[in-house]
Amino acid sequence: MASRPEPRDGAVRKADTLAKLEARGEDVWIASASLSATGEPVAHLVPLSLAWIDECVVVALEARSQTARNVFEQGRARLALGPTRDVVIIDAALVRSVPVGEAAADFAERYAKQADWDPRSEGDAYVYLVLQPRRLQAWREANELRGRTLMRDASWVV
Amino acid sequence: MASRPEPRDGAVRKADTLAKLEARGEDVWIASASLSATGEPVAHLVPLSLAWIDECVVVALEARSQTARNVFEQGRARLALGPTRDVVIIDAALVRSVPVGEAAADFAERYAKQADWDPRSEGDAYVYLVLQPRRLQAWREANELRGRTLMRDASWVV
Repeated sequence: MASRPEPRDGAVRKADTLAKLEARGEDVWIASASLSATGEPVAHLVPLSLAWIDECVVVALEARSQTARNVFEQGRARLALGPTRDVVIIDAALVRSVPVGEAAADFAERYAKQADWDPRSEGDAYVYLVLQPRRLQAWREANELRGRTLMRDASWVV
Repeated sequence: MASRPEPRDGAVRKADTLAKLEARGEDVWIASASLSATGEPVAHLVPLSLAWIDECVVVALEARSQTARNVFEQGRARLALGPTRDVVIIDAALVRSVPVGEAAADFAERYAKQADWDPRSEGDAYVYLVLQPRRLQAWREANELRGRTLMRDASWVV
């Protein structure tokens, strides 16, 4: 690449990461895995509207979707916020899922406000997944690969 | 979302998709899967520099990386080009891998030119993965979910 800005320190990366997680109307890439009929691991990947609520990534999706079934089954997912040269990558654990019709009003309203979309309008087939970051990395260019891990074992290390 | 442009037809989506695949200095998200020590499927996800060569997505990465090992083992990956509200999602099959030191000069130069990065400068640990799209989908907003499949069984259907 032509331009190589100086690498950001940990505090700046954390602030930038939180700004991405709190941005309105943004999506997160969510990678999950299942076993094929022949026992091979298969990756799935979709973009979903995101809200950052109580230190967790919240997404809403159809309970019967491939991603929801994978996350229910495995209890985890790998998340990414772009663009690809300014990334945040999160290994997350499912802490709970809530059918949209059973969510607390405050929770649902926080989701709708940040996501610019209210899954309660989609009917009962949708659930919220509450995903807790366990490990989080953030980097822009190759010169930021060093120091990219900002969270380990669900605790910020910066 | 406030604005809901009219959905694009298949021909426009295909042209937009090819423009994304041919864009210089862009990355692709690559999701792959492995089995954990306890036999559970685990998804991995990273961004990698992309080139579009002979109707295949080509990436270069360390042969010992998690993504390379997953793709070698499973022979497939799920790819995404963003941003998340203008996506191309590709289920791809590995057709060949080439250590960077053994690649044809023309191939390596096409990769370097599009990726703005030449993995031959990284030493012998890097390989090219040549990934053939088998199924490709492209959409922007919810009103483009219908008609999002542009390729099936490795053939364009638009």
